[in-house]
Amino acid sequence: MLFHVRMDVHLPPDLDAGTRESLVTRERDRAVALQKSGVWPHLWRIVGEYANISIFDVESNDELHEILSSLPLFPYLTIHVTPLAKHPSKI
Amino acid sequence: MLFHVRMDVHLPPDLDAGTRESLVTRERDRAVALQKSGVWPHLWRIVGEYANISIFDVESNDELHEILSSLPLFPYLTIHVTPLAKHPSKI
Amino acid sequence: MLFHVRMDVHLPPDLDAGTRESLVTRERDRAVALQKSGVWPHLWRIVGEYANISIFDVESNDELHEILSSLPLFPYLTIHVTPLAKHPSKI
Amino acid sequence: MLFHVRMDVHLPPDLDAGTRESLVTRERDRAVALQKSGVWPHLWRIVGEYANISIFDVESNDELHEILSSLPLFPYLTIHVTPLAKHPSKI
Amino acid sequence: MLFHVRMDVHLPPDLDAGTRESLVTRERDRAVALQKSGVWPHLWRIVGEYANISIFDVESNDELHEILSSLPLFPYLTIHVTPLAKHPSKI
Amino acid sequence: MLFHVRMDVHLPPDLDAGTRESLVTRERDRAVALQKSGVWPHLWRIVGEYANISIFDVESNDELHEILSSLPLFPYLTIHVTPLAKHPSKI
Amino acid sequence: MLFHVRMDVHLPPDLDAGTRESLVTRERDRAVALQKSGVWPHLWRIVGEYANISIFDVESNDELHEILSSLPLFPYLTIHVTPLAKHPSKI
Amino acid sequence: MLFHVRMDVHLPPDLDAGTRESLVTRERDRAVALQKSGVWPHLWRIVGEYANISIFDVESNDELHEILSSLPLFPYLTIHVTPLAKHPSKI
Amino acid sequence: MLFHVRMDVHLPPDLDAGTRESLVTRERDRAVALQKSGVWPHLWRIVGEYANISIFDVESNDELHEILSSLPLFPYLTIHVTPLAKHPSKI
Amino acid sequence: MLFHVRMDVHLPPDLDAGTRESLVTRERDRAVALQKSGVWPHLWRIVGEYANISIFDVESNDELHEILSSLPLFPYLTIHVTPLAKHPSKI
Repeated sequence: MLFHVRMDVHLPPDLDAGTRESLVTRERDRAVALQKSGVWPHLWRIVGEYANISIFDVESNDELHEILSSLPLFPYLTIHVTPLAKHPSKI
Repeated sequence: MLFHVRMDVHLPPDLDAGTRESLVTRERDRAVALQKSGVWPHLWRIVGEYANISIFDVESNDELHEILSSLPLFPYLTIHVTPLAKHPSKI
Repeated sequence: MLFHVRMDVHLPPDLDAGTRESLVTRERDRAVALQKSGVWPHLWRIVGEYANISIFDVESNDELHEILSSLPLFPYLTIHVTPLAKHPSKI
Repeated sequence: MLFHVRMDVHLPPDLDAGTRESLVTRERDRAVALQKSGVWPHLWRIVGEYANISIFDVESNDELHEILSSLPLFPYLTIHVTPLAKHPSKI
Repeated sequence: MLFHVRMDVHLPPDLDAGTRESLVTRERDRAVALQKSGVWPHLWRIVGEYANISIFDVESNDELHEILSSLPLFPYLTIHVTPLAKHPSKI
Repeated sequence: MLFHVRMDVHLPPDLDAGTRESLVTRERDRAVALQKSGVWPHLWRIVGEYANISIFDVESNDELHEILSSLPLFPYLTIHVTPLAKHPSKI
Repeated sequence: MLFHVRMDVHLPPDLDAGTRESLVTRERDRAVALQKSGVWPHLWRIVGEYANISIFDVESNDELHEILSSLPLFPYLTIHVTPLAKHPSKI
Repeated sequence: MLFHVRMDVHLPPDLDAGTRESLVTRERDRAVALQKSGVWPHLWRIVGEYANISIFDVESNDELHEILSSLPLFPYLTIHVTPLAKHPSKI
Repeated sequence: MLFHVRMDVHLPPDLDAGTRESLVTRERDRAVALQKSGVWPHLWRIVGEYANISIFDVESNDELHEILSSLPLFPYLTIHVTPLAKHPSKI
Repeated sequence: MLFHVRMDVHLPPDLDAGTRESLVTRERDRAVALQKSGVWPHLWRIVGEYANISIFDVESNDELHEILSSLPLFPYLTIHVTPLAKHPSKI
């Protein structure tokens, strides 16, 4: 079941470099793991913004919330989820 | 080069059935042809709305505008385009 | 799987009475049938507005879109869907 | 009398862990007590957000305000209340 | 129980004069009756707009919706309701 | 001359308790005095929000600005003023 | 007493030429008369828009509403009024 | 003196073909003439939209308004003007 | 050449009193000088807000930007500029 | 390939002078270099705002994101990118 997810990252500019580095590294590791598991099939950067547009493929709303709310960057993210359905013209 | 495109369809409820049928059929045929050509790799319906979220893969901004503005439903569409870049955590 | 759905109805004030009556009756019949089937467990009117807030309980995004887009009033509705998850403090 | 309530939680990411833990625990205890008393019949998490959608069942506007403004997390909440009425198609 | 209600009137400029006159007269009669009954204690025009701000005093959400949705101008109104509580500094 | 005033209070959650107590007490005293003088005839709390809706009755725009900008909480308030006129259906 | 007023004109493009001409002429005559009387001291066009920004100088809210709501173009106007006060740095 | 101008075109889909053709042709002729005269140095289409972003180079606000309000498509345009200044980092 | 300028002041409530006093005094001195020079012919306070609406009369966009960006309060201001033209009904 | 880019700068007013100076100098140097290289052909200040409107000319979305996200001021910028196409009336 597919969901469209937009995430905007709001890391404070004065966050100390070590904390930032650690957060971003853990986020990347988690993103890689989730992609390998198949639940995060698409992930794009929005040009000019510290934000991404993603497609998630999960079994349920609860699974998606569990994934998103456990991202290391979650406290710094504004997330908006849009549920997707099959399009009648999709080949 | 990838672009995120949201299209909202505003067909007037009192459009006569023949015109509507013709428009929707031509739109579907065009969407199928564009998917086969590879420029429209993803196409999803937004749940509960007469709207879609799509990914286009084109050579240039001009090519994308040519494609979108020649869709049969174009006069009834509200379209918003967001350019996408590779995400550093994408595997 | 639960979804929060807000529907705003935009019937033109000058719609002829017969068409309006027919649409509203068919919508009510459909709403009753969907409630009996268990997929539409909650349905409330927003005070002062021709709009409702509903909870749907479905198996998938596709099932929800199929239900919403086949409502008799669909061409006159503005619909916004919000996916819900279990709250950790829910007893 | 039913009210639809959306609460968005804005806990600062740099809040010290002890204060956060204490706030969240007290909030949960209060939420459990209010559910047991019957005034908070529905409580859902919005997928991907630190936010909830709730239904409250109270005797009056004053009772609802008393409940909401005494939540331990109240200083960190953005709350929007929508009064609900019986829907004519509700079975 | 008090509610703050804003109503914006959207009568089409080309509505025929007789229909408009009849609607406005019936609306005024209804407003007068509701004021006399005590449920509509305050009613003000917003300067420069075809809109009003009102206070309603009713027993329940359902009573308020019944009143608002049966106003003769209801099909032409955009209504927004805000529930009110006693203010701690009110003398 | 009547004005509709909405005030949203934004006291920082980490304001020290003494400062907050002092501010709120002075605000309440000022509100009581203004009500007794007749310029602040209505004052309601918005349910679920740290905000109020008020009606002021003053001689001029300048008098209203003088009153609002000298409220003890003014630096923490977002205020929006709407001028009101007599409604033709008011009895 | 001064008020800032923005008016946006929404004349339908397909309004017949005679009606439009008549409306605009009557509006201009009324605007000239109100300027001569001193209640409409400033009137500017917003560059690129069929809209104006004006300053009105009136005795009361009721007088301003009476003036604005009796403009010949009123049914086609979106009006927003902002009350003004003396600025402490005004010489 | 430079101004940034965004124009969104709202031609009704059911406008008869002759009127549309005539409007668009006259608009194009006017745009070409204005470009040749030097007052309209930049003109771009926004991808996916019936809208443009332009730069105008004029002597005064009045000249810009005269140009924009006399465009053949003006009754169908939503226009927003932003005044520009020299940027300190511009080479 | 006239421009409509709205300025909203966002001085942090916890700014130390000396800095605030100094900023406000320098701003007032600058405003007085600019009014005397003729470039700032109108300046009004918005009732209930720490904001003003002004009219500037300058030779060019660059002159206006130079004036606004050198105001002592500039780092704390949200400014929006609207270019004005002569209104055809202005006497 | 052209893109329209709006950048709003949000430097905190209390940033220490040295850091600010360093950031602004490095940003200017980078802007000059990018203009010389041809990828940043237009750059304007928005009158009254700490913001700019720019046109970028790049080979791809990825190149544009690389440029924008490596600007020294990037952590303090709100950026919005709009892809542009050739306008049919452009001479």
